[in-house]
Amino acid sequence: MCQTADAASAQGAGLVIFPEMFLTGYNVGAAVFKLAEPAAGPSSQKAAAIARKAGVALLYGYPERDGDTVYNSALLIDRNGRPLANYRKAHLYGGEEKKLFVPGDRLVTAELDDLKVGFLICYDVEFPEAVQTLALAGAHLIAVPTALMEPFGLVARTVVPARAYESQVYVACANLCGKEGNIAYCGLSGIVGPDGHELARAGKNEELLIADIEPATVAAVRANNPILAERRPELYTGPINSL
Amino acid sequence: MCQTADAASAQGAGLVIFPEMFLTGYNVGAAVFKLAEPAAGPSSQKAAAIARKAGVALLYGYPERDGDTVYNSALLIDRNGRPLANYRKAHLYGGEEKKLFVPGDRLVTAELDDLKVGFLICYDVEFPEAVQTLALAGAHLIAVPTALMEPFGLVARTVVPARAYESQVYVACANLCGKEGNIAYCGLSGIVGPDGHELARAGKNEELLIADIEPATVAAVRANNPILAERRPELYTGPINSL
Repeated sequence: MCQTADAASAQGAGLVIFPEMFLTGYNVGAAVFKLAEPAAGPSSQKAAAIARKAGVALLYGYPERDGDTVYNSALLIDRNGRPLANYRKAHLYGGEEKKLFVPGDRLVTAELDDLKVGFLICYDVEFPEAVQTLALAGAHLIAVPTALMEPFGLVARTVVPARAYESQVYVACANLCGKEGNIAYCGLSGIVGPDGHELARAGKNEELLIADIEPATVAAVRANNPILAERRPELYTGPINSL
Repeated sequence: MCQTADAASAQGAGLVIFPEMFLTGYNVGAAVFKLAEPAAGPSSQKAAAIARKAGVALLYGYPERDGDTVYNSALLIDRNGRPLANYRKAHLYGGEEKKLFVPGDRLVTAELDDLKVGFLICYDVEFPEAVQTLALAGAHLIAVPTALMEPFGLVARTVVPARAYESQVYVACANLCGKEGNIAYCGLSGIVGPDGHELARAGKNEELLIADIEPATVAAVRANNPILAERRPELYTGPINSL
């Protein structure tokens, strides 16, 4: 984390996103109950020191302990080392995650200077309404630690760009790479603009991707083609003519 | 329409989808007020004769007149020449469409033997909740006449497959090709399976695409990876932690 934070900071980054369960590994099974730490635990204090030293905000995935409950969480620490937001994965994927974690019960946004960031973790981003809800709450960027595995490369290549397009926000996914036990990760981390076009895309291996995230571009895209504003919620809950 | 219906029927098709505003052309401006016909008008009777002769159901876009009101509609005629469903485009695209048409006020499904079909027209399909609402109402296939123009190829290549993936339905888009006045259409008609993978994809020119649409495959995909069932609507309307 330290080297990546320094390298990103040297390139002028304001925020670095790490993958889901970055601190412990994703595929650790029941060991997660021992590894889980409170949001303000010792690991977050180490991360805070790294953020402060590099002068860059950090978002990373980790297993969070809150009393007897364990969440699959992501913590945002600002460039001064201050914990700013903690998001608990709301859509748990598959049987294993549901055995290990309790799902979060709300979405979260936070402000980094003039940038409003919404948070999701991996499977969450497959749900269009999750991204849309954050976009409608004013987020310019959806930051998504992931542990996307084979054979779901379609999610990185196709579903994530569609999320950015339809909700007219930046979406940045940081994925795990390589193998961990019986799981092969996709890599394919990516940063997509609010018009759905890719700004940066990794291959299967670890890379540091950099992109400018501009609130003014979000506004320009929405002014040009107002998809988000032209939703018709009354239609999606109203009667259907079934013939 | 007649040749295409015959060719599709010869290949065993049960339903043929034609583009948006197929009967009159899409880029006809205010002439649409003269060209518009009631759903039961003379053109639909010709189409019914074609469907009956070819023994195949037809879905096509046309400008619909209902009293003083004109809609951008799609009519489904079954293989016996019976008009089965009429859908009025609910999300009108851009200033020109909003000048010419009144938006429809409800979604529509219809049954063709054991297949439940939902209807959308072009821009409608960019709204994830429109597809999702039809999928939750039981549709196996979303049939989409389109007039997708440059530079929006991303919608055909990326957004439409994401729609199929997230709502776990087949999506079939029939697009216009070539130029019409100042508009260049994308082509790129496509049929996507309920796992988001392409079953058939046209290039820029007209092609007859064929695919098997299997309700059992929809069920199998949903059983394997229950995205549609794992939505959490309470989360999308609940409070957000804004930090």
